[in-house]
Amino acid sequence: MTTAGKVIKCKAAVLWEQKKPFSIEEVEVAPPKAKEVRIKILATGICRTDDHVVEGMWPSKFPVIVGHEAVGIVESIGEGVTTVKPGDKVIPLFLPQCRECKYCRNPDGNLCIMTDLKADGVMSDGTSRFTCKGETIYHFMNISTFTEYTVASEFAVAKIDDAAPSEKICLLGCAFSTGYGAAVKTGKVTPGSTCAVFGLGGVGLSVIMGCKLAGASRIIGIDLNKGKFEKAMAVGATECISPKDFTKPISEVLSEMTGDSVDYTFEVIGHLETMIDAIESCNKNYGTCVLVGIPPSGKKLSCDPMLLLFGRTLKGCIFGGCKSRDVVPKLATDFLAKKFDLDQLITHVLPFKNIQEGFELLNSGKS
Amino acid sequence: MTTAGKVIKCKAAVLWEQKKPFSIEEVEVAPPKAKEVRIKILATGICRTDDHVVEGMWPSKFPVIVGHEAVGIVESIGEGVTTVKPGDKVIPLFLPQCRECKYCRNPDGNLCIMTDLKADGVMSDGTSRFTCKGETIYHFMNISTFTEYTVASEFAVAKIDDAAPSEKICLLGCAFSTGYGAAVKTGKVTPGSTCAVFGLGGVGLSVIMGCKLAGASRIIGIDLNKGKFEKAMAVGATECISPKDFTKPISEVLSEMTGDSVDYTFEVIGHLETMIDAIESCNKNYGTCVLVGIPPSGKKLSCDPMLLLFGRTLKGCIFGGCKSRDVVPKLATDFLAKKFDLDQLITHVLPFKNIQEGFELLNSGKS
Repeated sequence: MTTAGKVIKCKAAVLWEQKKPFSIEEVEVAPPKAKEVRIKILATGICRTDDHVVEGMWPSKFPVIVGHEAVGIVESIGEGVTTVKPGDKVIPLFLPQCRECKYCRNPDGNLCIMTDLKADGVMSDGTSRFTCKGETIYHFMNISTFTEYTVASEFAVAKIDDAAPSEKICLLGCAFSTGYGAAVKTGKVTPGSTCAVFGLGGVGLSVIMGCKLAGASRIIGIDLNKGKFEKAMAVGATECISPKDFTKPISEVLSEMTGDSVDYTFEVIGHLETMIDAIESCNKNYGTCVLVGIPPSGKKLSCDPMLLLFGRTLKGCIFGGCKSRDVVPKLATDFLAKKFDLDQLITHVLPFKNIQEGFELLNSGKS
Repeated sequence: MTTAGKVIKCKAAVLWEQKKPFSIEEVEVAPPKAKEVRIKILATGICRTDDHVVEGMWPSKFPVIVGHEAVGIVESIGEGVTTVKPGDKVIPLFLPQCRECKYCRNPDGNLCIMTDLKADGVMSDGTSRFTCKGETIYHFMNISTFTEYTVASEFAVAKIDDAAPSEKICLLGCAFSTGYGAAVKTGKVTPGSTCAVFGLGGVGLSVIMGCKLAGASRIIGIDLNKGKFEKAMAVGATECISPKDFTKPISEVLSEMTGDSVDYTFEVIGHLETMIDAIESCNKNYGTCVLVGIPPSGKKLSCDPMLLLFGRTLKGCIFGGCKSRDVVPKLATDFLAKKFDLDQLITHVLPFKNIQEGFELLNSGKS
């Protein structure tokens, strides 16, 4: 018996308020409205940004279902949906791509006007598709994935190859695409170049993979935690250093290591001090520094403009600067063609009901 | 009788110390050493940077002959010079191009290792070619042009078409190339785009010309001094505004004028506040902000990194990011082909002996 057109009851991890644990609840998921799809979630990643919502450092309405890095199967489609059909394997996209707005039409743009910048927790018609115990539960980034079923705009799903393994390919929904795109699309890393990556978490590792795919000949990983070096080397770093081992500024260390400076630097932590390090570490004339880590809200970067006046480029990116529906399916195909591997980005695979344990692992530094 | 190989006695504007007037003196100019050329200066521009030396805001040894925007004729060449010969019309280049160093070989680099970054006032062999009353007079940016004769490295002169009119073409030595390059080379302005230029002095006007040559469809000039608007419109601005006419931030004014935001912004003043305005005014996702104005020494730009995280690009450039010996001859040819005009950049033409008057005009805002 089809569930299309009917409310689905399923389990979801509801965050009733800030700084409280997730609560696994039975929720009702309404059918998709026009241009929307309902998706059965197969696997979801946990991203630092989800934890920022828990901690009150990222704007969100409550109660909410967070999660934004997942893979699923289209269960049913709303009126007028033409680009996916029930049964398609899809990745929900927190950065949609309508392909019609000014941002989508710009070759360098990816901040589609349908992006949930207001963080108002509702779909484009102003309502939510989730309820629990009679109460409205809000959406997160318009794709809430910590649930067995979710609803998203047609423009916020990328159809991918059915063969892609769920617990790995879900990483294309955030971490991998963000890091890969930062190197390939935003930084435009060139073959034979030297890159330095500040911060070796999942996104940092993905930046390294992007630099390697772009043909960089030297990739220097930088982290205070040397426990991260093994994975960094496994995904493509040619050497790793910890600032703890030096008394001089890291830009000087890199200058000595390279005989001058590196061509591309990536800040994948979100610390203001590391941002300055990353700017100072790239070549003063033609170096590019890409900011990937999310900085603390409201804090200012204090930077001598002369650092830029001799020719440096400072850029930032969201989702690696990638146009989501264009890039994600291609990356899934590249993954299946073994052009890159995602194993090193996965520390644990847990059943959905253990999601709270996943956050505890995240915050213990074990993931 | 040839002067080659002999010391030439000629007039030069010597700056004996900071914050004092120029003194027209008879100086001795030694013959060029290996890989150097001696140039008879035909015309020189006065740039704000020269005045910064007078005022002690730009590093220099004293006594010095400043000036760095000129045109001349090669009088004689030193041993091993192969790229120019006596009689060639040349523009001295404060940014040399050796074509061999790492910076010259990088497609985006232009800060040749022979650039006088140390500001030590001597040629590459550690000595000066100028003396006056028995005292060593220092060079400025290795090309000192406020003199009837100067000496420069072969790598710091661009041979140009003899037909180029001296009192105009000298502007390719700094102002025009800097502004033009900021738009075309550094900003990479695209056809049909919208640009905003903060500061409508000579370099700002040159940025406007660069934007126009790159095919921008809308170019908004911004200056507190409305007296600058007529020239800005004459060189290609499609409209001009003064922040004095608005109480709201200029980024909001531009947002309302354009229905969203501009694609490219250029800061051509060197004020920290205007730099932030320029960053905020370009499109948050795919906008590019180019810093051209030299900021006050040691001052920090305080900037919310979230301004960059959604995709903006912030760049700076020196000499517009142009590789000097490649670009300047082409621009001279383009000028002769009437692809652009330099008349609006010239406010006064004075005899050399009246150089002090030129600086007074500069500081009165009349030039």
